[in-house]
Amino acid sequence: MPISQNLVHEFIKILGRENVFTEEAERQSYSYDGAVLNPVVPALVAAPDRQEDLGRTVRLAYENGLPITVRGSGTNLSGATIPEQGDGIVILTNRLNKILEINEEDLYAVVEPGVITARFAAAVAARGLFYPPDPGSQSVSTLGGNVARNAGGLRGLKYGVTKDYIMGMDIFDYRGELVKTGSRTVKCVTGYNLAGLMSCSEGTLGVFSTIIIKLVPPPRASRAMLALYSDARRASETVAGIIAAHIVPCTLEFMDNKTVKYVEADTRAGLPVEAAAVLLIEVDGGHEQMVEEDAAKVIAVCRKCGCTDVRVAKNAEEKARIWEARRGALPALARARPSIVLEDATVPRSRFPDMVTAVDDIALKHKLDVATFGHAGDGNLHPSILCDRRDKEEFARVEAAVDEIFDAALKFQGTLSGEHGIGMAKAKWMEKETNRATVEFSKNLRRALDPRMLFNAGKKYV
Amino acid sequence: MPISQNLVHEFIKILGRENVFTEEAERQSYSYDGAVLNPVVPALVAAPDRQEDLGRTVRLAYENGLPITVRGSGTNLSGATIPEQGDGIVILTNRLNKILEINEEDLYAVVEPGVITARFAAAVAARGLFYPPDPGSQSVSTLGGNVARNAGGLRGLKYGVTKDYIMGMDIFDYRGELVKTGSRTVKCVTGYNLAGLMSCSEGTLGVFSTIIIKLVPPPRASRAMLALYSDARRASETVAGIIAAHIVPCTLEFMDNKTVKYVEADTRAGLPVEAAAVLLIEVDGGHEQMVEEDAAKVIAVCRKCGCTDVRVAKNAEEKARIWEARRGALPALARARPSIVLEDATVPRSRFPDMVTAVDDIALKHKLDVATFGHAGDGNLHPSILCDRRDKEEFARVEAAVDEIFDAALKFQGTLSGEHGIGMAKAKWMEKETNRATVEFSKNLRRALDPRMLFNAGKKYV
Repeated sequence: MPISQNLVHEFIKILGRENVFTEEAERQSYSYDGAVLNPVVPALVAAPDRQEDLGRTVRLAYENGLPITVRGSGTNLSGATIPEQGDGIVILTNRLNKILEINEEDLYAVVEPGVITARFAAAVAARGLFYPPDPGSQSVSTLGGNVARNAGGLRGLKYGVTKDYIMGMDIFDYRGELVKTGSRTVKCVTGYNLAGLMSCSEGTLGVFSTIIIKLVPPPRASRAMLALYSDARRASETVAGIIAAHIVPCTLEFMDNKTVKYVEADTRAGLPVEAAAVLLIEVDGGHEQMVEEDAAKVIAVCRKCGCTDVRVAKNAEEKARIWEARRGALPALARARPSIVLEDATVPRSRFPDMVTAVDDIALKHKLDVATFGHAGDGNLHPSILCDRRDKEEFARVEAAVDEIFDAALKFQGTLSGEHGIGMAKAKWMEKETNRATVEFSKNLRRALDPRMLFNAGKKYV
Repeated sequence: MPISQNLVHEFIKILGRENVFTEEAERQSYSYDGAVLNPVVPALVAAPDRQEDLGRTVRLAYENGLPITVRGSGTNLSGATIPEQGDGIVILTNRLNKILEINEEDLYAVVEPGVITARFAAAVAARGLFYPPDPGSQSVSTLGGNVARNAGGLRGLKYGVTKDYIMGMDIFDYRGELVKTGSRTVKCVTGYNLAGLMSCSEGTLGVFSTIIIKLVPPPRASRAMLALYSDARRASETVAGIIAAHIVPCTLEFMDNKTVKYVEADTRAGLPVEAAAVLLIEVDGGHEQMVEEDAAKVIAVCRKCGCTDVRVAKNAEEKARIWEARRGALPALARARPSIVLEDATVPRSRFPDMVTAVDDIALKHKLDVATFGHAGDGNLHPSILCDRRDKEEFARVEAAVDEIFDAALKFQGTLSGEHGIGMAKAKWMEKETNRATVEFSKNLRRALDPRMLFNAGKKYV
């Protein structure tokens, strides 16, 4: 059912014609996201460029019973920004993209939700401070989207994930009323931790208006290196050895041989295509000598665990090349076949070796092309199934393999999703990891804050 | 209305006679907490010693419409554990005090809610790891209570507060059903961040069964010092100077002259009773030389900001004496007069000097005896009004002063409570800091998860 012309005019009255997209060609751009799922074209796209207009848009849509999908850049991998079938409206946040404040004395910033993550990180760095969360999509993703899914990234091991940097926020509720939570202070226990609840809410509980973000002083020194292995299991075992030495690298990434080959073919970064697996490791900290010594300890652990070689980046350029190669993993793999199903199963890091082995076994069993990379230090694995979704027989094997990957993660006391979220893609597994009572509890919570179930209505588990 | 004998027998059937307190003398011990508020004697006290009994107790109480107050050690300062008038039941968690797991490879622990904070920290330290949150009451307080109020402490500046260490938990909902959230993995975005919501929920949304706690490697070096000032404002200005130098001490505490005098009289720790104010500072980190250099930089900032002397602790014993003195502040002040109203207003740290001045002015205006100490690095001030609650005229001035302290905190973009919580004590100010919509949003949320409003029903703002 399309939206009535009258209602369209009401949106235009609030937002101005230039901020309301009604043409099919325009709307089609907002019908899909990073997940391998069927696109759904929204009935209307609204792109408010002032916070008060955002609130009025939410109110008008909600009062009229329109399913609302709030969208930053749509980079999420779980279908969280695919609109609802029928008369759904997409609210774009990308014109709400102002950095309202960077406070160097009190180490926080206030932003609108549509600010691009990497732009924000750069603006903060220019003021001599540091915003650590760095999801793979940071050059495109928005901070609002990062909060909605509690985005992770490469630095999670030492620095935590998005939610660890959210001090407070203003949220439009379903009535378009502004709800305030948290503070510009580093400690705040005034009322419920709604900012914590919103971090990972996948757009189902309210619409972010402004976000208060914690900043930290940057590390004063860092050292990056590449460790090569002729046996993938030894690479994954190194992770536990590093933690046992009480070193917490800022980044500790794993790439298997298949990933390395695809990335090297794509980037010519000089990666060792003969290695069974590589670890990409960076240690950082507040002191040059400490970092030097930590790096030496890490190298010793790598050697003890049987690595064949360690290559330490000699300068900033070599370091940048290592991380560009790692960041190139997803695009390189995505180009390999028509479809990529990128999974996100996560286990306690000591079970990482078992999980890598389990994924290999599952790939073999279902005769699938699976490249695995991920945040080894977090136990956060990205088995990437390269396939062609149009091939029904193959895709049935993909789906069977995904089921088994989740079963393995849960067997190892892990979780369905480390950083990509549940969205539509994983809703059916929610109850398996938790239980019926947890899903009901979540539904009650959601219904209280979204009584007509219009916010990201596609999120089936709630 | 007392609880019927039939119902008492049902509780005894679940818990055993030894875990149900019905005598008035027993029940009276659970009628008050750390807040200066009227005691309310509960109708029944239940002390389950098995998790499944906890769930059955919650179910039975809820089904019978009994107001439920969950209590750890009752150390909170905001009346959060004062029972509901009438037929309220107190559920004690202190017999659910098992540390179920400390996992050194994966850096987490699993505990029951009644574990004493300091006992846990010591058990973790014995395994070579570190649990940083250290609320002032840690030798008595429970981890469950710490989570329910998101307890802070002295190390918040660098290491964060309780919520930053909660990876997941199991919660009994109002039906006594077990809800599972979070994971043993460092990244988890499976479902809503219910663990985040529970951190700071003040017992109003569910009852914690087990808690998964993040651990970190301990610092390898530390240096503690005492900086003396002849002008309190200069002490408070030093805080911004240290942060501007990009040093984040693990602890950065302030005590005014009055606090120092009371503590010294109480502890004979050798504190400088002639100083207008002191800062107690500790820097720590992963490397001896870094800590040495950071300490030198901190001393330079203190001197530049006009301190009269800096005394660096020469050994572990001297360091321990500094922190014992600081931890002695609240007990020393509490003994000074019959009552102590300990406030918790928090401001962005750059406004700390203004806030200290504002508190002094308010004390003068209302002719009150106010000693101020607190977590200067967090902008988290504890103005402590020494008074006699039975003196109605004086207490009216205390209440007027508290109002003005909150007004000042809000004027400086601060918050009502940095770490003590809202409870009953601050409920009436909630709407002033946030707004009507925020309180309604919170009420909706609470009603969804506690439909009969029985959990900590005294929390008036929700």
